[in-house]
Amino acid sequence: MSTMTIGFLGCGNIGCGVYRLLKEQGEQIARNEGETFEIRRILVRSKGKKRGAEIPEALMTENPDDVLLDPQISIVMEFMGGEEPAASYMLRALEAGKTVVTANKMALATHWQELIHAARTHAAGLYYEASVCGAIPIIRAINDSLQANRITSVTGIINGTTNYILSRMTREGASYADVLADAQRLGLAEPDPTADVEGYDAAYKLSILSTLAFHRHVPVGSVYREGISGITPLDVQCGKAFGLTLKLLAIAKEVDGCVQARVHPAFVPDDHPLASVSDAFNAVYVSGHACGEMMFYGRGAGDMPTASALVSDLIKAAKTKNHQLPAVDELPAKMADDWACVHFVRMLARDEPGVLSVVSGTFARHGVSIASMVQKGETDSDGHVQLVFLTHRASERCVRQALGEMDRTLVSQVNVIRVERD
Amino acid sequence: MSTMTIGFLGCGNIGCGVYRLLKEQGEQIARNEGETFEIRRILVRSKGKKRGAEIPEALMTENPDDVLLDPQISIVMEFMGGEEPAASYMLRALEAGKTVVTANKMALATHWQELIHAARTHAAGLYYEASVCGAIPIIRAINDSLQANRITSVTGIINGTTNYILSRMTREGASYADVLADAQRLGLAEPDPTADVEGYDAAYKLSILSTLAFHRHVPVGSVYREGISGITPLDVQCGKAFGLTLKLLAIAKEVDGCVQARVHPAFVPDDHPLASVSDAFNAVYVSGHACGEMMFYGRGAGDMPTASALVSDLIKAAKTKNHQLPAVDELPAKMADDWACVHFVRMLARDEPGVLSVVSGTFARHGVSIASMVQKGETDSDGHVQLVFLTHRASERCVRQALGEMDRTLVSQVNVIRVERD
Repeated sequence: MSTMTIGFLGCGNIGCGVYRLLKEQGEQIARNEGETFEIRRILVRSKGKKRGAEIPEALMTENPDDVLLDPQISIVMEFMGGEEPAASYMLRALEAGKTVVTANKMALATHWQELIHAARTHAAGLYYEASVCGAIPIIRAINDSLQANRITSVTGIINGTTNYILSRMTREGASYADVLADAQRLGLAEPDPTADVEGYDAAYKLSILSTLAFHRHVPVGSVYREGISGITPLDVQCGKAFGLTLKLLAIAKEVDGCVQARVHPAFVPDDHPLASVSDAFNAVYVSGHACGEMMFYGRGAGDMPTASALVSDLIKAAKTKNHQLPAVDELPAKMADDWACVHFVRMLARDEPGVLSVVSGTFARHGVSIASMVQKGETDSDGHVQLVFLTHRASERCVRQALGEMDRTLVSQVNVIRVERD
Repeated sequence: MSTMTIGFLGCGNIGCGVYRLLKEQGEQIARNEGETFEIRRILVRSKGKKRGAEIPEALMTENPDDVLLDPQISIVMEFMGGEEPAASYMLRALEAGKTVVTANKMALATHWQELIHAARTHAAGLYYEASVCGAIPIIRAINDSLQANRITSVTGIINGTTNYILSRMTREGASYADVLADAQRLGLAEPDPTADVEGYDAAYKLSILSTLAFHRHVPVGSVYREGISGITPLDVQCGKAFGLTLKLLAIAKEVDGCVQARVHPAFVPDDHPLASVSDAFNAVYVSGHACGEMMFYGRGAGDMPTASALVSDLIKAAKTKNHQLPAVDELPAKMADDWACVHFVRMLARDEPGVLSVVSGTFARHGVSIASMVQKGETDSDGHVQLVFLTHRASERCVRQALGEMDRTLVSQVNVIRVERD
């Protein structure tokens, strides 16, 4: 039995969850894993604040040095959230030779190279299972279970807020704005929802996942990003007619030595395992050349699911003598600047002879071939009608070029959504 | 960089898969993990046999001692299948202080205590991720990611053959016998399909999973087992009408200190994540008090998926200095002898006034209350009609007792299928 002395950076909902879990399950963990933990100091912003766990005030401090400079603390758990000062504190902890366990995707993804470098230089451990998809052990799966694979793609629903919004839009035909307002009332979306709905949160997580999957650094800035705020009930409904379900996907693929990493709304076939991942659940679908297709599903957020992953990392950190850092090349990944997929294209077109021929002709000139087309609803009073096309697999750039050349006197309100079939 | 010298016991499809994967990915594994492997001897039944990998004949031997007694071999990989001689060979390897990596659920589940004891006594490692659900890292998830949880249930589709058969029966309305014959032609079912269709294979796997999840030994003999050979297209079809999908489930739960471990056909709601696990795919659904609901999905069999898990265990075994065995009490688990669930009861009843009252009265006397009833189809020429009941959550024993007392002049051909809703 060994006892590890640990410090907390932050003590919000997740920190309180970790505190409670360690109290409640401490005996089980000691019996099964041979590890006990003593929480020595907890950095908080305000000692007097009421919290979700009964924590002795003597443990709390408002001075980060009480955690970062205490030589007795060997593992620092960080759940302050946000980029700074979390990243600087983690760096200081690593530089002092302390092992860091974090749930902070933003600080980790944004300062990946510095943090890994500091951990390596000071032989400290850096554990971050909780930073991506809460309780789902996707980091372990990639690092510790799929090592013999060439991973070819990682496709995930890795933001619960947007999945909740799209699930309700799909079920109820409701508008984006209405469901967002509801989600905000229920505490499922932040008052400023930008980080979630514009895909930033998913981009941080995808940067981490794709870096690990392809063993080359994929900086957050290299992740293509598009949110869900432009999605209309009509898009969702037209997709349904083609047997497609709309999700905010985070997609990373390696094709011919180039990495694609992109977060955007995408349709998946209704019978794809990701299609049935609803509401606040997360799931990551991984393909490897030996393992084939796999999916990892669970609660991607929440105090206790995140605490479950943090404590699991804490136990692993405590047991590990020589911490292993992920095998990632120093050079960043070569990023793809174009990719091929099926495109769903919806447009408002003048309902007159020859329009379809003009549209399909423009697509054809750019090498984009049409797989199917449906007219949605009746011609409106202005003589316009909704047309929805599904292309065959086509280069994104060619589709954009074709749409850029469409005759705008004939078509307007063009909306493009990618379709992921594999 | 360290080099491990390894030996194989067996070299069928899975062994050849491991051989190919180590050749093909050896460089990546060396670069990323710092481990290289030298295959020193391979035990085969017949050296001359043609195999799925180009293996130098000099490596092969028909004498198990060449692997088991070679002091240079530190890790033995076993993929002979079957109980004996695999179990005895693994025991001998462990007793010689060699670490064992195995894909053999039957030998492992049947000889669990001996193998664990030998590993503990001789400080050897025992790794078996590949023994349950091929590439899916469910053993790692339970042992290394969910340690801070009280796991409350593990529910899986852990046999690909039966899932293929039930998926096709569901999609096509085909009979069990027809689909089985097809599966046999396609090599998806064995010429003697008993181990799969009667649930033995799933029972071995469930014994392992539940032992790990609840930290108490659940012997194979304590797993309740019922196969799918009695399932008719009518059952599948009647379930559909209630929004239910039929699966062969392996279920382990801990309720009030007693463990239920059971393999049997069961209906799940159509929108349950397990309902959409089709064909030869496997999935395990886990609930823990902190992590919430999780699901792990993937290819549960096949050479390369199984090889993926075996090589992952091999890497883990090579890197581990002090092998950890699962924390399982010496005493076997206290098993539940009854459990409560919703029951689907289909029967052929005389179509005459008062029958429903007799049936529901008999149920009521045993405390079984009916949630819904539908009559399926028209009255036949003998004056009988199919009645399908869904009970409220009821004790299995009470349902059996009630059915035992049904007036057999009024009802016949009674078929009961459990419904799992959580």
